Amino acid sequence: MSVLPFDHPWLSGLLGDDEVAELFQPIAELRQMLAFERALAGAQAAEALIPSEAAEYIARRLEDFSPDDEALARGASRDGVVVPELIRQLRAFLGERGEFLHRGATSQDVIDTALVLRLRPAIGILSQRLASLHAALTRLSQSQGRRRLMGRTRMQDARPIAVADKLASWILPLERHKKRLHELRPRLLALQFGGAVGIRDGLAGKGDAIAQRMAETLDLELPSGSWHTQRDNLAEFAGWLALVSGSLGKIGADIGLMAQMGDIRLEGGGSSSAMPGKQNPIGAEVLVTLARFNATLVGGMHQAMVAEQERSGAAWSLEWLILPQMLVATAGGLRRANLLAADIIEIGTDG
Amino acid sequence: MSVLPFDHPWLSGLLGDDEVAELFQPIAELRQMLAFERALAGAQAAEALIPSEAAEYIARRLEDFSPDDEALARGASRDGVVVPELIRQLRAFLGERGEFLHRGATSQDVIDTALVLRLRPAIGILSQRLASLHAALTRLSQSQGRRRLMGRTRMQDARPIAVADKLASWILPLERHKKRLHELRPRLLALQFGGAVGIRDGLAGKGDAIAQRMAETLDLELPSGSWHTQRDNLAEFAGWLALVSGSLGKIGADIGLMAQMGDIRLEGGGSSSAMPGKQNPIGAEVLVTLARFNATLVGGMHQAMVAEQERSGAAWSLEWLILPQMLVATAGGLRRANLLAADIIEIGTDG
Amino acid sequence: MSVLPFDHPWLSGLLGDDEVAELFQPIAELRQMLAFERALAGAQAAEALIPSEAAEYIARRLEDFSPDDEALARGASRDGVVVPELIRQLRAFLGERGEFLHRGATSQDVIDTALVLRLRPAIGILSQRLASLHAALTRLSQSQGRRRLMGRTRMQDARPIAVADKLASWILPLERHKKRLHELRPRLLALQFGGAVGIRDGLAGKGDAIAQRMAETLDLELPSGSWHTQRDNLAEFAGWLALVSGSLGKIGADIGLMAQMGDIRLEGGGSSSAMPGKQNPIGAEVLVTLARFNATLVGGMHQAMVAEQERSGAAWSLEWLILPQMLVATAGGLRRANLLAADIIEIGTDG
Amino acid sequence: MSVLPFDHPWLSGLLGDDEVAELFQPIAELRQMLAFERALAGAQAAEALIPSEAAEYIARRLEDFSPDDEALARGASRDGVVVPELIRQLRAFLGERGEFLHRGATSQDVIDTALVLRLRPAIGILSQRLASLHAALTRLSQSQGRRRLMGRTRMQDARPIAVADKLASWILPLERHKKRLHELRPRLLALQFGGAVGIRDGLAGKGDAIAQRMAETLDLELPSGSWHTQRDNLAEFAGWLALVSGSLGKIGADIGLMAQMGDIRLEGGGSSSAMPGKQNPIGAEVLVTLARFNATLVGGMHQAMVAEQERSGAAWSLEWLILPQMLVATAGGLRRANLLAADIIEIGTDG
Repeated sequence: MSVLPFDHPWLSGLLGDDEVAELFQPIAELRQMLAFERALAGAQAAEALIPSEAAEYIARRLEDFSPDDEALARGASRDGVVVPELIRQLRAFLGERGEFLHRGATSQDVIDTALVLRLRPAIGILSQRLASLHAALTRLSQSQGRRRLMGRTRMQDARPIAVADKLASWILPLERHKKRLHELRPRLLALQFGGAVGIRDGLAGKGDAIAQRMAETLDLELPSGSWHTQRDNLAEFAGWLALVSGSLGKIGADIGLMAQMGDIRLEGGGSSSAMPGKQNPIGAEVLVTLARFNATLVGGMHQAMVAEQERSGAAWSLEWLILPQMLVATAGGLRRANLLAADIIEIGTDG
Repeated sequence: MSVLPFDHPWLSGLLGDDEVAELFQPIAELRQMLAFERALAGAQAAEALIPSEAAEYIARRLEDFSPDDEALARGASRDGVVVPELIRQLRAFLGERGEFLHRGATSQDVIDTALVLRLRPAIGILSQRLASLHAALTRLSQSQGRRRLMGRTRMQDARPIAVADKLASWILPLERHKKRLHELRPRLLALQFGGAVGIRDGLAGKGDAIAQRMAETLDLELPSGSWHTQRDNLAEFAGWLALVSGSLGKIGADIGLMAQMGDIRLEGGGSSSAMPGKQNPIGAEVLVTLARFNATLVGGMHQAMVAEQERSGAAWSLEWLILPQMLVATAGGLRRANLLAADIIEIGTDG
Repeated sequence: MSVLPFDHPWLSGLLGDDEVAELFQPIAELRQMLAFERALAGAQAAEALIPSEAAEYIARRLEDFSPDDEALARGASRDGVVVPELIRQLRAFLGERGEFLHRGATSQDVIDTALVLRLRPAIGILSQRLASLHAALTRLSQSQGRRRLMGRTRMQDARPIAVADKLASWILPLERHKKRLHELRPRLLALQFGGAVGIRDGLAGKGDAIAQRMAETLDLELPSGSWHTQRDNLAEFAGWLALVSGSLGKIGADIGLMAQMGDIRLEGGGSSSAMPGKQNPIGAEVLVTLARFNATLVGGMHQAMVAEQERSGAAWSLEWLILPQMLVATAGGLRRANLLAADIIEIGTDG
Repeated sequence: MSVLPFDHPWLSGLLGDDEVAELFQPIAELRQMLAFERALAGAQAAEALIPSEAAEYIARRLEDFSPDDEALARGASRDGVVVPELIRQLRAFLGERGEFLHRGATSQDVIDTALVLRLRPAIGILSQRLASLHAALTRLSQSQGRRRLMGRTRMQDARPIAVADKLASWILPLERHKKRLHELRPRLLALQFGGAVGIRDGLAGKGDAIAQRMAETLDLELPSGSWHTQRDNLAEFAGWLALVSGSLGKIGADIGLMAQMGDIRLEGGGSSSAMPGKQNPIGAEVLVTLARFNATLVGGMHQAMVAEQERSGAAWSLEWLILPQMLVATAGGLRRANLLAADIIEIGTDG
């Protein structure tokens, strides 16, 4: 389906980002769900809770598994989450060793950890784009920084500034975003493993040892206990995404106005179906759109923090609806901002 | 792509709605964009601005058109909207009569009217589901209304009420939603036709006459002039969607709590990967999720009302990102609410 | 306190509206809470549930009541609502007839009805300002409508339009807002009377008759039963407020850009502490601010629709925090828009 | 005025926080605006831009200044900000040395720095309350941690947990919030000084030196240049506030449900006007309310990041409307959470 423009064949290139969207394809999620199960079985074998042979078999066989998508859809619709049906299919696929799969785990362990395992590469992509945007704007400041520009306050001409001043107001937030990401990263990229009620019970007292092994295998942080009812790290990350797209939105708003005032020359620019010669600063507009979009969504992640009891299906599903699109919006914004920076021919005037 | 669970093969059945999502498939949008162009050519022929033969040829030939999706994606990414490239393809497809296509129109005319033409069937689906939910709850009230239920206020037992009292609090808002939809419908289902700057210029003074003919052909309301910079009708509709899902969210919250307190017996109910025997009130949770989701999104449509000048690319694209998912969330909520109502075996106690 | 600029001695004139804010002063709320109690006692006397003499005494004596504000604050902090302590004070004040006060009613009846009784004059003020803004813009269109203005789309010059075209895009939404208000008004201005769990029990079967009398006395609509758990009418009204301020935000965004491009001449305009000669289009900016503010808030009213069980203290208090400020933002926006319209000296150019 | 319950004599004790609200009183803001001017004059004297004697006179005389509030209100309404009129009053008050006041500064320098100077004590209050809540919950875990509680997932009984498990899910986020605050603090508590267009011009090349001296005097961080168009630090702080209140909202939702299920015994609890004996978990509800309130507001601070050009009056004023109330909501939530923790008599069961 194509309800969201990010999922739409015509529009994802305009507004979205296929590279990060790829991480939310079913196949990508499945891969990480299986990584979770493999790590779990491996850890339980190491702790002598299941036979090593079974763990090895599971690790090997899962390579070849491909799910019955329609049954998964029916299962998700019935159970509120795809995992129970997936485990059923996996156990059937594994035959008698199937009983050693998913022991002591629950759906949320699988889904949350598989999310985090995909946030890691997503963060990698975003970091790289932040860095390249930073570099491009810095180069621009070096080459054109001494040119002059009318500074405008409250929609009125104020006094001239240097192009470097304008660019500094775009560059400095990017540096802070990099620092923030560095700070939140270890909080975010943390294993979730807790079992039915989050206390790692039913594992012969070896729950924590298993969690530690899993975190090592999956190269994730090991938090104190389970975070399945503590959603602050995800909401914090959503906030970071909205901060990044907000800063890009300011760049977009500035460039749009500069284009209108003739303060900037851009390569390319969109044409119109009514006025083919017109050159519209599409990329700048998109940055504003995505900033306002993430600003709209971010509060929903905070609403989802009010997650009652030991598992709130309602609050948890709300995150599923919001976080991926915020991530793609931010990735799309960074992609377009890089393109836009490359399209800048000239800012301001000589003198 | 599957960034949004509504577009996801495993999750759309849980949270989304394939019937309404279908209306946002590229093929469905294309069909209505072509309907717009056909109506435009027909009206211009009737007003003797283009040859009747050309209009007929256009009407006939467009049946067979299928777009080059990749070129559309490239065009949208460049132009901010798919229409300029689509018109280019259509004109090439139509050969020499291509020059009679899209005269006096602009991208936004096509996109906005094609949206409205799909909102019409969407509204039809929603109305029907509202009606069937109303009927189901009314039947429930007739059959079980005299049973008793503990009324609870501020998370504490208060005094008993009748099941009919509880159901009335679910039913009455549905009646108001129906009325509201009736009131806003003619505002919403209105032709957009304005040309480059919304004033129907360049049509030998026949712009309004053409608009009137188009509205008749497409069976849409004919507003006074162009509404392309007046987005209140769309924001109002988004508000209606959030009102509907908000009322369903109240039902879901009630049923979830009733399930926890043992006040309701439901057929089905989701199972857990850790505790296979457990029966979770998934449908009730979904209603809460979707209510909070639409409540998160609705403000973005109000942000998009701040649409500067004669066309704001930034504000307009924000609507594309928000309205379709609100519509699907509401449709999905109504679908699940109907299923949930059918799953209710018993509410309250006998005496 | 002055946490909100609308409550701030320096800033309420800039951003808020003292006339509507007045309706949210404690004294104004108290007056309507007492009106509720008076109407309740009167209705119960007419239905012979309490002595007529007591009702008359209550009606008369309440004129002279003034509360112990500190005790009310302590009561509200303890009980979550001011009413229990208010009733305690009122009963003490009334002496032995105090027992005839507030019979069969609950806190929410008092608070919700007292809100509605103040929404009525608020709506009156808003209507009047909408009408005067409509008239001012219409006059402007008559006097300057034929002047020319560059139409701008996607931050670029497109084609010229008439000033009348621009003004029409500001005027037409106001007409629809008027119509919407007319439609929602009877839903909104409805008596709330339900007692502890909303079913008008404990009144010797005369609950509905009492409600009918109260609605007549207070000149409110009489809905079918209690609406205390059905918050759609309030959320709808919040949506309307955000629609109005959204339309004003579009006017503000246009005027700000016109001021920057030299397309409009305004009387007044704010000065700067750094550049005293500068003329800033403050009023235009304020309209954008208030539009985005209401767009931020509106979703919270939809969140509050998820009001669990027979009374959700959490959801209800959320409305208290949001609706009044949305109302004042809208009133302030309309006030400033009227001032701004009066400040317009000239739009566009002669030819 | 009392539009916002935090500013309301009856309701601020329930929902707000007078200690933090005090920081948004005009007198508290004035004090910090004067501190800015004093530091500016002092720095300019040290850099020999103005006579030392004048700086000393300014520092001394400002102690005795009290503004004409009505003129400030008129000025703010006209200029969009209170500073131009305040400077006019101050200069008149200072007589001939008035010309040495506010040199090279602009309104936003004064307002933004005066905000930051009040965020510092606000952060102190919040930190302390976070710490005391952490301590109270930790003590509770020590005393009652081994008691048992039914773990509930998706609104259904799952498996028992220890009270310590529940409390850990409340405590751990508080530790992360402390760490986050430590990380963002130096970004937030930074001097704003830039002059008319943010480039510290017109100061004989000593703009940066002056800024450095001011930062020292005011004990603020000295960022690279001006941050007046870079609002990410404020939006980040707003996000932190919403994270804190979100975590408290989870505690509130849990306690409300535990109260309903009989899993917790609380001292106090609000009474009802209809059912005086009832004990409502008011504090728990308030935590949910404030979580949803801040979640509603936070996106507005991200919208305000789209601050066009060298000063966006529209975006800036939006912050004024949002940030103070988020701060008070968080402070109020922490206050009530501490009270609530103290009210817990017993959680769960013995065995």
